[in-house]
Amino acid sequence: MQIDNLLKQINFIKEIDKLKYVQRKTKLFNSDRNENDAEHSWHLAMMTIVLAEHSDQKIDVMKVLKMVLIHDIVEIDAGDTFIYDTAKNHTNTDEELIAAQRIFGLLPKEQAEEFIGIWQEFEEGITDEAKFARSMDRLEPLLQNTSTNGGTWKEFKVPYQKVYDKKKAIKNGSSLL
Amino acid sequence: MQIDNLLKQINFIKEIDKLKYVQRKTKLFNSDRNENDAEHSWHLAMMTIVLAEHSDQKIDVMKVLKMVLIHDIVEIDAGDTFIYDTAKNHTNTDEELIAAQRIFGLLPKEQAEEFIGIWQEFEEGITDEAKFARSMDRLEPLLQNTSTNGGTWKEFKVPYQKVYDKKKAIKNGSSLL
Repeated sequence: MQIDNLLKQINFIKEIDKLKYVQRKTKLFNSDRNENDAEHSWHLAMMTIVLAEHSDQKIDVMKVLKMVLIHDIVEIDAGDTFIYDTAKNHTNTDEELIAAQRIFGLLPKEQAEEFIGIWQEFEEGITDEAKFARSMDRLEPLLQNTSTNGGTWKEFKVPYQKVYDKKKAIKNGSSLL
Repeated sequence: MQIDNLLKQINFIKEIDKLKYVQRKTKLFNSDRNENDAEHSWHLAMMTIVLAEHSDQKIDVMKVLKMVLIHDIVEIDAGDTFIYDTAKNHTNTDEELIAAQRIFGLLPKEQAEEFIGIWQEFEEGITDEAKFARSMDRLEPLLQNTSTNGGTWKEFKVPYQKVYDKKKAIKNGSSLL
């Protein structure tokens, strides 16, 4: 049973290597090179550890870490949707749910259920942990785009008000940030 | 004071973006593309969450996560040393300590001390958390190299016994693995 679980887990660990190929729209700091989802997820995890003290609510930091580490794994199947895309809404789509069930479903049953639950909690954005995780997810590209003098906002002509509306989510996790 | 800390933290968050440029010797699964340290650290964090149940000892998973997320940050200054390098020993060098003090030193004092301490604990490899973190660090390239039919072992002509000696560390964290 333990060996059976381990083989499933190793299979999952190999599968998620593909996250390193999913390109985001945003660029690295002061750079022209696009960021990929694995790098992005690592950076959010670091931000979570470093900035957790600024959360408005007392949060379970371990749960936030799990959220930010796994939040983009569904994009292995569903691809990255640009947050300012006007045609396709960046929400918990059917496509992403199918992806979550396939990829997390590689894990032993109990772990698969835990991961799907955590991913859904992040997507819904209601709990304090989800709010803080989402505020990290919004803050990173803000820091990146200000370092590249407008970055993807300029490249894709995103109006100020739209950026402002999306970035308001940062305040839901921490009023100081 | 809180704003002062926050500015230091943001500065650190920008600085560690450079980890995405530090290339490792190992390749992604079934691929010719080298892995970078940020992707590697994300993968170890995922492995930690997924495999923690196989640790021989009861471990503080949060501490292991911090270890694997930060363990390579010193390489921003000190560079990646190939584990099978015969000229340069892959140990806690003076160069790495200076790097740790500079980079973690960007953080507020208390946090800087915590991170330097966690990094040193990882490097020493004595505590149960460090043993498990190091076993994750050895296991990832083993999985990668077996997926590429020998990978960097073959490329750099590393003898079997040397691989076996280095990989014994995996057993220190988990006898099942």
